[in-house]
Amino acid sequence: MRIGELSRRTGVSVPTIKYYVREGLLPPGQLTSPNQAAYDETHVRRLRLVRALLDVGGLSVAGVREVILAIADTERPVHKVLGVAADRVVPRYPEEPGEGIVAAREAVAALIAKHGWRSHPESPAAQALAVALAALEGVGHGAFVEVLDAYAQAAERVARADLDYVARNVVREELVESVVVGTVLGDAVFGALRRLAHVDASDRLFGDNT
Amino acid sequence: MRIGELSRRTGVSVPTIKYYVREGLLPPGQLTSPNQAAYDETHVRRLRLVRALLDVGGLSVAGVREVILAIADTERPVHKVLGVAADRVVPRYPEEPGEGIVAAREAVAALIAKHGWRSHPESPAAQALAVALAALEGVGHGAFVEVLDAYAQAAERVARADLDYVARNVVREELVESVVVGTVLGDAVFGALRRLAHVDASDRLFGDNT
Repeated sequence: MRIGELSRRTGVSVPTIKYYVREGLLPPGQLTSPNQAAYDETHVRRLRLVRALLDVGGLSVAGVREVILAIADTERPVHKVLGVAADRVVPRYPEEPGEGIVAAREAVAALIAKHGWRSHPESPAAQALAVALAALEGVGHGAFVEVLDAYAQAAERVARADLDYVARNVVREELVESVVVGTVLGDAVFGALRRLAHVDASDRLFGDNT
Repeated sequence: MRIGELSRRTGVSVPTIKYYVREGLLPPGQLTSPNQAAYDETHVRRLRLVRALLDVGGLSVAGVREVILAIADTERPVHKVLGVAADRVVPRYPEEPGEGIVAAREAVAALIAKHGWRSHPESPAAQALAVALAALEGVGHGAFVEVLDAYAQAAERVARADLDYVARNVVREELVESVVVGTVLGDAVFGALRRLAHVDASDRLFGDNT
């Protein structure tokens, strides 16, 4: 199909499609004449993936490029790619050198050990958790760590559901793509569900007596 | 204390503190002379809250202002404020008018009904969920809805833990603030935990046979 039809099929404007090709988010079409290219279903699917990661996942263009490179990297063992992809998706927070972060990192290492997780305490996810816990402590909500176990159990439940879903895919590229999509869009899904559950729990707790 | 000490205590630069005052994120200090103001512990705490919402929560300056106004609004019943605060924190996604969003909204309404949640299907959280589900469908991962129940159960568990934590606060403003902080920073905490659990689950599933 021509670029105009690709645009109609995906709702992405022609200049934006050209921008994504320049930025390496979308492979160029097959040249059929010096200034015309043909696109196929792989471009439709990739464009939808790019828009989902940008619009719903909130990733930057550079972040989407990294994720797409991770999906395309066929050299590594699957579980390594999954780890790398997950790490790349985690936001990198500036670590304040204050005393709070040291205690928070110890709390994270203890949590990982307690749950027997095969996760490295120096991984981006562990560091992001430490920064979030230090920030909670900084605003006077250090007691939040007491509910961390409930959070960790819920996270295990979600991760198991994610992996069960992912393990259905037999083709390697689909498997890796589904992990990345699930990691990014799954966060948006869970965040929305958590707020729905909040509204319900808050209504039951405070709705009748205030 | 003077603005220089407030800056040292919080690690926020003096020009940035002045910017936050202009933007309404921080109340001005008490004027002690025409060009000097005194700040106190409430400023230290508020500055840490603002930085936590900006840096870890990823909110915009306008988003932080809205959240702070919601905390300060003492007129409304508590559960209404909690709902409003939660709704304001939810990212607003552009809703594509495609057929995908209609089916996704029906799936969300069915999920709310199934779990007996007192949540409105038109709320921002429900709409954010519908947009995320429609995006998953658009990238060929419509089957993800099959794991939605596991997600919903985990979200209920987290929401109960959040409300248990919140209900300890007896002072109204602290209660509302703790919900807002928990909603924003709790997302960062859960996202990091989910990735730690992913790495563990992925290593167990794929680590030995690839």
